[in-house]
Amino acid sequence: MAGHPSDPSDPHPHVDVGAGRLEAFSDAVMAVIMTILALELRPPEDPTLASLADRLPGLLIYLLSFMFIAIYWNNHHHLLRATTRISGSVMWGNMFLLFWLSLIPVLTEWLREDPRAALPVTCFGVVALCAAIAYTVLVRAIVRVNGPSSLVGMAIASDRKGKISLVLYAVAVVAASVSVWVSYACFATVSVIWLVPDRRFVRAHDR
Amino acid sequence: MAGHPSDPSDPHPHVDVGAGRLEAFSDAVMAVIMTILALELRPPEDPTLASLADRLPGLLIYLLSFMFIAIYWNNHHHLLRATTRISGSVMWGNMFLLFWLSLIPVLTEWLREDPRAALPVTCFGVVALCAAIAYTVLVRAIVRVNGPSSLVGMAIASDRKGKISLVLYAVAVVAASVSVWVSYACFATVSVIWLVPDRRFVRAHDR
Amino acid sequence: MAGHPSDPSDPHPHVDVGAGRLEAFSDAVMAVIMTILALELRPPEDPTLASLADRLPGLLIYLLSFMFIAIYWNNHHHLLRATTRISGSVMWGNMFLLFWLSLIPVLTEWLREDPRAALPVTCFGVVALCAAIAYTVLVRAIVRVNGPSSLVGMAIASDRKGKISLVLYAVAVVAASVSVWVSYACFATVSVIWLVPDRRFVRAHDR
Amino acid sequence: MAGHPSDPSDPHPHVDVGAGRLEAFSDAVMAVIMTILALELRPPEDPTLASLADRLPGLLIYLLSFMFIAIYWNNHHHLLRATTRISGSVMWGNMFLLFWLSLIPVLTEWLREDPRAALPVTCFGVVALCAAIAYTVLVRAIVRVNGPSSLVGMAIASDRKGKISLVLYAVAVVAASVSVWVSYACFATVSVIWLVPDRRFVRAHDR
Repeated sequence: MAGHPSDPSDPHPHVDVGAGRLEAFSDAVMAVIMTILALELRPPEDPTLASLADRLPGLLIYLLSFMFIAIYWNNHHHLLRATTRISGSVMWGNMFLLFWLSLIPVLTEWLREDPRAALPVTCFGVVALCAAIAYTVLVRAIVRVNGPSSLVGMAIASDRKGKISLVLYAVAVVAASVSVWVSYACFATVSVIWLVPDRRFVRAHDR
Repeated sequence: MAGHPSDPSDPHPHVDVGAGRLEAFSDAVMAVIMTILALELRPPEDPTLASLADRLPGLLIYLLSFMFIAIYWNNHHHLLRATTRISGSVMWGNMFLLFWLSLIPVLTEWLREDPRAALPVTCFGVVALCAAIAYTVLVRAIVRVNGPSSLVGMAIASDRKGKISLVLYAVAVVAASVSVWVSYACFATVSVIWLVPDRRFVRAHDR
Repeated sequence: MAGHPSDPSDPHPHVDVGAGRLEAFSDAVMAVIMTILALELRPPEDPTLASLADRLPGLLIYLLSFMFIAIYWNNHHHLLRATTRISGSVMWGNMFLLFWLSLIPVLTEWLREDPRAALPVTCFGVVALCAAIAYTVLVRAIVRVNGPSSLVGMAIASDRKGKISLVLYAVAVVAASVSVWVSYACFATVSVIWLVPDRRFVRAHDR
Repeated sequence: MAGHPSDPSDPHPHVDVGAGRLEAFSDAVMAVIMTILALELRPPEDPTLASLADRLPGLLIYLLSFMFIAIYWNNHHHLLRATTRISGSVMWGNMFLLFWLSLIPVLTEWLREDPRAALPVTCFGVVALCAAIAYTVLVRAIVRVNGPSSLVGMAIASDRKGKISLVLYAVAVVAASVSVWVSYACFATVSVIWLVPDRRFVRAHDR
C-alpha cells in the first residue's frame, strides 16, 4: 500500500529498490488481512441492547486480531526501514510470514463462532506461533545479508520481544485444552509487549 | 495506499519517513473501510422501480458514511502533510482513530436494516464521537511533538471545526432516543462543515 | 494505491503534493471498486459444462465493467499527471466522480441477475452518464486552476472523446426501454473509443 | 499498491513515470486478487478436529493460488523494474494479463467445491495458460519498445521459465480429463520453478 521512494541522497539506490518493493507487497497483503477482519463483523440482529450485547465478545476478538495485525505491520515497517540489502531468503522468509498472517481472519471468524471452544484457540495459537517463527527467520535472514555491524544488525542485537512472544504463544497452544482464558491472556500479553514502540530502530534511524 | 516520498528539500528526511509510514498505513485502513461500505450495497431485488425505491434510504445512508470517511481521509492527509515529527503517542493516537473508523461499516449496515430505530443511531453517534475525540487527541499529540510555533501548531491554533463536531455528535447521541431525524441532521451538518476545505493547512504549505 | 513522489526537479513541489494526494486517494477507491467487481463473480454451481455456460453472460458483464473502471483509472492517471495545481473545486469534482464510480459494482450485480431487463440497464446508463459528467466537470476545474496555456490546458483543448461518451451514454439511457442491446452496444463503443491511448497527454509529458 | 518514484538519477524521468503508473495499477489489482482468495476461506463448521480436517484440501488449494499470484507479483515487479519505456501495446498486454489473473479467485472457489472434478481443473489450467501467454506477450512488447540491447532485452534474452510454464499448463489442460492429479502436479511444478528468484533481473539492476 505504500510507495517508498528511493531517498535521493541514498548512495545505493539499486539496493533500496528491493526493500521498497518487499515493503509495498507486504503492506498490501496486511491491508488485505485488515479488510477481511473488519468485513467479518456482523451488525446486531435487532436494534436492541440485548442484540448489541450478543456482539460484544466478537468485537473484543476483533480488537485482539486488529492489534495483532497492526503490531506486525508496525514492527515490520520498522524492520524494513532499517534494512538496506535484501536477498532471496529474505524474500521467501517474508512470504512465509505473510502466508501465516493471511490465515488470521478465518481463524478469527472461527474463534468468534464459539470463543470458549479449545480447538479454535489452539489453532490460533499455532498460527501465531508459526508467524512469530517466520518473523524470527526473516529478521535473521535480514541480519545475515546486512551484516551484524549494520544498523539493523546492531538494532536487533538481542531480539528479546521476539523470544518472549515465542514462549507465550507456545504456552497459549498448550494451555488451550486446559483453559482458553490462559491462552487469551497470553495473546493479550504479547499485544501489550509489542505496543511499546521499539526504540531500537528509532534510534538507529536518527543517527 | 499512498507512498509519500521524503521531500528532497526536507532538511530532516529521517523524521519525515515516520510520518510517511503513518500516512500510508492510515490510507490503507481507510481504503479498506470504503471497500466494505461499498460492498454492503445490495442490488434491488427485482428489476422494477418499486424495488429500486426500496434501496434509496440505504443509498442515502451509504452517501452519509462515504462522506464521513472521505472527510476524515481528506483532513487526516492535510494534518499529516503539515507534520514533520511523530512520536509514540502520535502513533497510538492514530491507531485509536483508525479503530473507531473501522467500526463505521458494520454500524452503517445496522442503520440500513432499520433507519428509524433509535439504538443503531445512538451507536453510530457514539462511535463518531469516539472517532472525533481520537482525532482531537491525535492533533494535540502532533502539536506537542512539533511545538506550538511549528507549521502544524500555528495552523490549528484554534481547532474550531473539531470542537463543533464534538458538540454535534454529543447532541446526536442524546437526541436519538427522542428523534432519529435530529441525529441525522447533526451528522449531515458535521459533513457540510468539514466539506469546506481547511485553508489553514493549505496556507501553511504554501509558505 | 500509488505513491507519486514529487519529482525532485519540480520547481513547485508544494503544489504537486496536492495532486499526488488526490491521485493516491482516487487509485485506492478505484482498486476498491475492482475488488468488489471480481468478488461478485460466483463459481458455476456444478462441475459441468452446462453450469459453466450459465455463467458466461455474467462473465461478459464483468468484462464490460472491468474495462469501464480500467479506462477511468487509465485516463484519470493521464489527467492528474499533466496537472500541477489543484483547488477545492478540483477535489470535490474528483470526489463526485468517485462516488458515481463506486455505484458500478452494485449495478453490475443487478445487471447480472437479469441482463435483459430494461431498468437495470437504464440505471447503469444513468450512473455512467453521471460519471462522465463528473469527469467533464473535473477536467474543466483542473483547466481553470492550471490555465488554458498550461500543459493540461493545451492537452485537452478539445475534449472530443468526453463529448462523444456523453452522447452515447444518453442514447443508452433512452434506448434501454426499447432494446437493451442498443444500450449494451453504446457501452461497448465507449469502451473501444477510450481503449485507444490518449496521445495528447503522452505528448504533453514528453516535452 | 506501490508508488515507485522516478529514480532521481534516471536520465529519462518522463518515461519512467509511465512504468511506475503501470506498476501501481498492477500491484493494486493483484492485491485485490489476494484479498478475494483469502476471503473465500471458510472456518471449520464445528470446533472439532474432524471439521478442521474437512478444510485441509481447501487450504492446500488456497496455498496453490496464493503462490500462483505471489509469483506473478514477484516476477512482474522484476520485469517492470528493468523497464524504462512503455507503449500502448505494453499497457494493453498488461491489462490482458490482469484480466486473466482476476479470474483465479472464482476458479479457486470452484476447485474447492469438488477438487476431484475434471472441468474446474481444466478451466483453471486454461486460465493459467492464458495468463502465461499474456505474460509472454507483455514481455515481448516491453522488449520491442526498449530494444534487444536494453537491460530488460538482455535480461530475458532466453525466456526459458516462461516457455516451460506454457508447456506444463498445456499438459495440465489436456491431462485433467484423464487424471486431475497430473494437472495438480503440473501446477505445483510451475510454482517451484518460479520460486527460484530470477537472477537475470537482479544482475541487470546491480550494474
